[in-house]
Amino acid sequence: MYAGVCYYPEQWPQSQWASDARRMAELGISHVRIAEFAWANMEPQQGKYDWKWLDDAIATLADAGLKIILGTPTAAPPQWLCAAMPQIMPIRADGKPWRFGSRRHYDISSPDYRRECRRITSAMAQRYGQHPAVIAWQTDNELACHDTVPSYSPSMRAHFQAWLEQRYGTVEALNEAWGNVFWSQRYPAFRDIDFPIQTPTDANPSHLLDFRRYLSDEVISFHQEQADLLRQYAPGRDVFHNFMGLFGAFDHYKFAEHGIDLAAWDSYPLARTEVTPFPESDKVRYARTGHPDVSAFSHDLYRGVGNGRFWVMEQQAGPVNWAPFNPTPAAGMVRLWAWETLAHGAEVISWFRWRQAPFAQEQLHSGLNLPGDGYSPGGFEAVQVGKELRTFEKAKAGVGQVAMVFDYETLWMYDLQRHGASFDYNMLMLSYYTALRQLGFDIDILPRDADFSAYALVVVPSLAVVDDALVERVRTSRARWVFGPRTGSRSVNFTIPHELPPGKLQALLPIRVLEVESLRPTLKPALTLAGESGSVIHWRDHVAAGEGAQVLAECEDGWPVLVAKDNVTYAAAWLEPALQLAWLEQLTREAGLQPQRLPDGVRTRRLGDATFVFNYSDAAYSAPIPTGKSVVIGDATVPAQGGVLAYR
Amino acid sequence: MYAGVCYYPEQWPQSQWASDARRMAELGISHVRIAEFAWANMEPQQGKYDWKWLDDAIATLADAGLKIILGTPTAAPPQWLCAAMPQIMPIRADGKPWRFGSRRHYDISSPDYRRECRRITSAMAQRYGQHPAVIAWQTDNELACHDTVPSYSPSMRAHFQAWLEQRYGTVEALNEAWGNVFWSQRYPAFRDIDFPIQTPTDANPSHLLDFRRYLSDEVISFHQEQADLLRQYAPGRDVFHNFMGLFGAFDHYKFAEHGIDLAAWDSYPLARTEVTPFPESDKVRYARTGHPDVSAFSHDLYRGVGNGRFWVMEQQAGPVNWAPFNPTPAAGMVRLWAWETLAHGAEVISWFRWRQAPFAQEQLHSGLNLPGDGYSPGGFEAVQVGKELRTFEKAKAGVGQVAMVFDYETLWMYDLQRHGASFDYNMLMLSYYTALRQLGFDIDILPRDADFSAYALVVVPSLAVVDDALVERVRTSRARWVFGPRTGSRSVNFTIPHELPPGKLQALLPIRVLEVESLRPTLKPALTLAGESGSVIHWRDHVAAGEGAQVLAECEDGWPVLVAKDNVTYAAAWLEPALQLAWLEQLTREAGLQPQRLPDGVRTRRLGDATFVFNYSDAAYSAPIPTGKSVVIGDATVPAQGGVLAYR
Amino acid sequence: MYAGVCYYPEQWPQSQWASDARRMAELGISHVRIAEFAWANMEPQQGKYDWKWLDDAIATLADAGLKIILGTPTAAPPQWLCAAMPQIMPIRADGKPWRFGSRRHYDISSPDYRRECRRITSAMAQRYGQHPAVIAWQTDNELACHDTVPSYSPSMRAHFQAWLEQRYGTVEALNEAWGNVFWSQRYPAFRDIDFPIQTPTDANPSHLLDFRRYLSDEVISFHQEQADLLRQYAPGRDVFHNFMGLFGAFDHYKFAEHGIDLAAWDSYPLARTEVTPFPESDKVRYARTGHPDVSAFSHDLYRGVGNGRFWVMEQQAGPVNWAPFNPTPAAGMVRLWAWETLAHGAEVISWFRWRQAPFAQEQLHSGLNLPGDGYSPGGFEAVQVGKELRTFEKAKAGVGQVAMVFDYETLWMYDLQRHGASFDYNMLMLSYYTALRQLGFDIDILPRDADFSAYALVVVPSLAVVDDALVERVRTSRARWVFGPRTGSRSVNFTIPHELPPGKLQALLPIRVLEVESLRPTLKPALTLAGESGSVIHWRDHVAAGEGAQVLAECEDGWPVLVAKDNVTYAAAWLEPALQLAWLEQLTREAGLQPQRLPDGVRTRRLGDATFVFNYSDAAYSAPIPTGKSVVIGDATVPAQGGVLAYR
Repeated sequence: MYAGVCYYPEQWPQSQWASDARRMAELGISHVRIAEFAWANMEPQQGKYDWKWLDDAIATLADAGLKIILGTPTAAPPQWLCAAMPQIMPIRADGKPWRFGSRRHYDISSPDYRRECRRITSAMAQRYGQHPAVIAWQTDNELACHDTVPSYSPSMRAHFQAWLEQRYGTVEALNEAWGNVFWSQRYPAFRDIDFPIQTPTDANPSHLLDFRRYLSDEVISFHQEQADLLRQYAPGRDVFHNFMGLFGAFDHYKFAEHGIDLAAWDSYPLARTEVTPFPESDKVRYARTGHPDVSAFSHDLYRGVGNGRFWVMEQQAGPVNWAPFNPTPAAGMVRLWAWETLAHGAEVISWFRWRQAPFAQEQLHSGLNLPGDGYSPGGFEAVQVGKELRTFEKAKAGVGQVAMVFDYETLWMYDLQRHGASFDYNMLMLSYYTALRQLGFDIDILPRDADFSAYALVVVPSLAVVDDALVERVRTSRARWVFGPRTGSRSVNFTIPHELPPGKLQALLPIRVLEVESLRPTLKPALTLAGESGSVIHWRDHVAAGEGAQVLAECEDGWPVLVAKDNVTYAAAWLEPALQLAWLEQLTREAGLQPQRLPDGVRTRRLGDATFVFNYSDAAYSAPIPTGKSVVIGDATVPAQGGVLAYR
Repeated sequence: MYAGVCYYPEQWPQSQWASDARRMAELGISHVRIAEFAWANMEPQQGKYDWKWLDDAIATLADAGLKIILGTPTAAPPQWLCAAMPQIMPIRADGKPWRFGSRRHYDISSPDYRRECRRITSAMAQRYGQHPAVIAWQTDNELACHDTVPSYSPSMRAHFQAWLEQRYGTVEALNEAWGNVFWSQRYPAFRDIDFPIQTPTDANPSHLLDFRRYLSDEVISFHQEQADLLRQYAPGRDVFHNFMGLFGAFDHYKFAEHGIDLAAWDSYPLARTEVTPFPESDKVRYARTGHPDVSAFSHDLYRGVGNGRFWVMEQQAGPVNWAPFNPTPAAGMVRLWAWETLAHGAEVISWFRWRQAPFAQEQLHSGLNLPGDGYSPGGFEAVQVGKELRTFEKAKAGVGQVAMVFDYETLWMYDLQRHGASFDYNMLMLSYYTALRQLGFDIDILPRDADFSAYALVVVPSLAVVDDALVERVRTSRARWVFGPRTGSRSVNFTIPHELPPGKLQALLPIRVLEVESLRPTLKPALTLAGESGSVIHWRDHVAAGEGAQVLAECEDGWPVLVAKDNVTYAAAWLEPALQLAWLEQLTREAGLQPQRLPDGVRTRRLGDATFVFNYSDAAYSAPIPTGKSVVIGDATVPAQGGVLAYR
Repeated sequence: MYAGVCYYPEQWPQSQWASDARRMAELGISHVRIAEFAWANMEPQQGKYDWKWLDDAIATLADAGLKIILGTPTAAPPQWLCAAMPQIMPIRADGKPWRFGSRRHYDISSPDYRRECRRITSAMAQRYGQHPAVIAWQTDNELACHDTVPSYSPSMRAHFQAWLEQRYGTVEALNEAWGNVFWSQRYPAFRDIDFPIQTPTDANPSHLLDFRRYLSDEVISFHQEQADLLRQYAPGRDVFHNFMGLFGAFDHYKFAEHGIDLAAWDSYPLARTEVTPFPESDKVRYARTGHPDVSAFSHDLYRGVGNGRFWVMEQQAGPVNWAPFNPTPAAGMVRLWAWETLAHGAEVISWFRWRQAPFAQEQLHSGLNLPGDGYSPGGFEAVQVGKELRTFEKAKAGVGQVAMVFDYETLWMYDLQRHGASFDYNMLMLSYYTALRQLGFDIDILPRDADFSAYALVVVPSLAVVDDALVERVRTSRARWVFGPRTGSRSVNFTIPHELPPGKLQALLPIRVLEVESLRPTLKPALTLAGESGSVIHWRDHVAAGEGAQVLAECEDGWPVLVAKDNVTYAAAWLEPALQLAWLEQLTREAGLQPQRLPDGVRTRRLGDATFVFNYSDAAYSAPIPTGKSVVIGDATVPAQGGVLAYR
């Protein structure tokens, strides 16, 4: 449990570096990330390196006792490079290249750019890889941000075609897999397959899905090339990439397989709440705190991606600049977010950024320090966290009470084929996550092929493809398994399984989905569930229950909503929050867990032997502290909008 | 009155064809449409035809006693054709070609594509034109769907210029007609005239209108080329095209003149209701039934387009995939829609499609059968219709009590010059149509030059251009004529007539429109009409009534709303539904008709000596069955949301 | 105080000109603008001039005693010119040229088009420059309308680069000024700097701002070239350009410096109200009158731009065609707008247009005459104004009680960096302007470097850059100065000043802005001010008040809202209208002014010794007429929606 910060020495006079470093250390910061946008400073002209400033910066920070994280600068190729190699600029859907003048202006499939990235990465890593103060390396920055991965360039088309050939072997196999008999879409050869854009009406969903899979693999290989060099030249150092919240442009589990030692991500709760499709009432309520699950969900997800190890590389420290509206956080929230991050098991909580830049694109993005001198309001909260951290006994995240399954291919499939404008896989995940956390549980979010043996309950809000391995895992599991709507609705080729949804899950639960319906906001089939009256929203499968399948709940119009057999329950619809909560309370109790309803906006989290309470609500919360526990942070009365309590 | 279905043998194993055909026949299906997207199967490589599968499919279906409708496959040119002739790809407004990978990816003006279409059509027609089971031919599929007619290509520009030269003779005449003295828009020659797009501000409306007229003619000639070949090689067979609902990219009356033997259209009530600008309250209410007039209106329109003969070639059989939200229909609606179609005089009601495809773009579009085996919920309703059809005595549509006039040029003119964002000609048409059907009338929708001698009332919701012929027709008519706002507001060149609107109608009704106003939703001039208080919405002409013109109603601010003389009434504004209803009730009674107010959502329709009652409302309806009539379908208590009653 | 009209003789038969001219004179019109779109008539073919018609038109109008304003026709280059010189067509962001077929289709940076404009301007001016009836010249028409100034062409890129070199001298200075160390954005040379568009994420704000500055200068020089020629060939005539309302594509103060003799603008209150981001409640309320400040604000602004002299060159005379909804004005409003224009000091009120054109783009834009013959409803109101003008004693605008500062660079900076979606500088200006006019004050809107010595109160709703000159001006002023939020928040290079906002204003008022926040519509910090309870909306600076700064009001959460010292008050937030009004009532009283609250929708304005009262509200207003004053227009009871009263 360490505090860190993002720092840009190249943006400040060298005379200021030493005092910056000293003040960081005083604050309790031990880790500092630098250099991830400084290519033009490291190599002002093609082939003319300037390491002096970076040598000095590293020395100055190391002298203050700080551990250094170096970022490869490939997210921002310099102008001279773009001018010398125009073929590295990514091509927009309209056929024009994106222009120089911000960041991420590169074609990730460009062999020339790949070579340049290897060159600068090697040069950096050879120089600093074994520096004792440099303890970790970040590749690039927020890969795929700004939707910059697709580049409709000749190199990307060629890579995509080769990827398809690799996957399918023969074009006949591809035609069969994609159902190209439909609308005479048959391709004579792989080389005839274009990007799935600018078709007069919808492109083939299988074509679209394979393009996403290819793009994901392209991102992964871009990172992997750098990771391999870093491991070569910087042995023993942690290698990672800083991911983003609720972001699925690539398969993070697959990315993590060989590519990283830990998962880092960038947490901006206020802006993320504003731009995520939460109900407007939540956006109103949590405008100054962020939604109480918007970061926690990603903490729990990335802890899984990192196989237990995760950092927050950038943590919001005050108002930011990139949402439609950018309020200041409620006083106390910067501290709350930091402790929440740590409570969810982060090894490092690193603020973005040390000092607000008074120039260029992010000048309205705050930092721990004002653009001139002195701490910002958020900076003062970081000071408090720094003090609290000194006395808080370090601990590691244990296993949660409930496991949830997240799946990137499911995200892609439902994004490509929403069927209803309001169907959003992340929001379906969050509808379960929120209810379970309102019931007081700690949650681990895991991939479909994880080891679930430690859990009494596994919740799969939806999983597009059910395969034999999963069926076997469920059959032999001692846990209760809950599957949500659309589960098993597709094959790996993005077609409807012949046995109908839920596909192979039928081996465990004999039901068939006859029809599906997406629901406009005003169309809400009614039902009563666990004593609560309410409605189905957004989506409903119309299920026929076969022999042995027990219908636990149905809508007033007769369509089943909950059907179960043995350890498997299928929820055929998306439930309103109050119904979701009532049902999961009942279900978790049946599963032998002890749900404890928390007030709206209050969340708990265990870390080692400590229990944390976080108050996002607008009322103070009197937390019941079990006998024998003693408070280590805060007080039993947890203040509204920012209160933190920890006892152990 | 026959049942039909759309079938894609190429998408299923040949071993399944015979049982499919047998089950169709069992269900009561007599007509089956095939092949309209199967070019790549008929001609897998350039010039290498494969007819075997189609020979077999036709034979299998014919053996089961089914009548076959063949579609020419020109809506989906194969990839090898697009690759060999890139010049056939349509050009988008941004100058880039649309790409292969869906359908309708062809430039309708391309001489090369025209030649290829004639070739494949001839080949098909020569082979199957005289096959005894092949009783009808469809050209292409849903021409102009996905806004695919405009192609900003050299060939289209040349055709447009030639079309203009044909229309105007000299460029001076065009400059005069378009008012090109305005903003120095004068053209030196026809070859200087470009597409009316990407002008810094509005293009000349006359330029825009002529481009639409040209596009309409281009669509018509594309179809006509195929129709001519089909008539040559398939003598005696019906030739048609499948139109769409509320669709006006071309002039269907002109299309029909020489091109078709009957009008077919594709009816998807739920999705059409969702995407049509009905008031939100209607979308809420009719989410599972479709608006009660959304298909009926098109039935009555296309019956006129087909000169009395119409089919529904594709009828929604369950949830579809293409609206923002896609709910399942209320139980019973698939049956209701079928009977409604037949009650409006359709010869064939053909469901889309026999079996849901588990792959490609339309995999979430239901059919009569599930993607695996067995009927879908809608399929079971089709079975019931099949049974009912066997005992229902065939009948033909008679003449309705009220005629309405629809005009494609009016649609285009108001679309190009809405003046107010909420002015939609189709919705104006529907505001009259709905009120008249709520009063229990059967309606015939006809072109401006039809024979109206059978009607006591002719309603013209608006007609942009009033010409001498129409004036004469009204003058010598014994019917009451109602004209709505904007009537006579334009010349054929899309300019304001010198005598001011309503133009030549002034010969019958001495009024002049001094100003017009479009009304934001909150601006609603009040009035009382036929005892009902309410408001004008969307639009109001400011009318000065001349000598002999009687003002029947006016707004509280004094502007006339209804002005009449002899058999002509002019409605100067768009009326709120309740006012519209009250007024038309009074007016139809005065015209000697017998209006009968039906509950909201209930509709009636006569067919031969049968009377049908359809219940779209959410309450059961007790229909008054006249003495001496006997029920042939349903019961006097017509169930909510799907109830059908027929008595004769 | 004269009446004028816009006339297009080329659009009507020559036989009609004399009677048109006679009727104009009868109506009281003395000024008529012609020819500004008639290039194709003056020069039907390249180099073949046809002056005959224009000679005749000028003679006919002059014979009727009318004074003529000639417009250069450069807003609409003829088709032959565009065809001969395709390089003059402006290039869209997508790289395609805008097309011929409307207006403003020219690249303002094109040397070839500049040369052609000088040629036609010289030809016109040489022919008519000294004609006794031609008393003024307008250049082009509504420069920058339809967002037509940016042209992403080689000539514009070269001009932009040259402009940057001129401004910064060295590219190192530019890199420093823009903060290009951020994201490795350093440029090697000026020739490497591209347009700030199509960057994957936000372009550098300094880059964007300099592009706006360059575009503004390009517009100014385009006008200046014509103005110089007109002054050469038409000595003694007024030269001007017709600006638009709430329009800031260029710096009008800088434009005016050497370029114009008076400021003219085009006033369309209804459409402008509909398209301006007023609260929906205002749009509802003022749908038929226009917002009571929407034109008045521009009158007061352009009077300043014209250094006291302003005209309205185009005044709405009835319904127009270009807003989403286009209602007719309430009866009386055409007259009210005319008197309002005059009361604000206009020398000429010129209606658009003499007669509605029945053809082309603006056929639904009304005029004083119907498209056929006879006055339109608005025309009859103009007749009344003409009569009233004959007896009204001419007067000139005096100095108002309050000065407000408007600043184009501030407009650009906040537009480029709104931070919150609802932050709009014009609306912030209007929030002050409306409150002050509701308190009965006359307002002068002036540039930052004006002479403010005549005012007791200067209101600066916001000013991005505070420089030494302004600080000195305030320090030595005897007036109260009010500065709104974001004042002093930027340097001239669009960076945050090192001393933090409000920058140099800290020399007068020791406060520092620590953070800023933009507020979603539901986030409204509460406060009580001048006895009124309400909220902050849209924006709040978080201010730390230093020694000597007095906090006059703060939000319930403790952040200061009003802070003052000596003659300077800083408003750190945007206030709800009721709070704004209460506070400014208190403040103006303290400043020695006499505020008088007017009913909602009522406005007053003094002109010479006359006082005008305008009633935009929906209730009649009984105006208190001071003893000794006598009514010269209207009556003490001022009718709702259109009432005008003047007494002196």
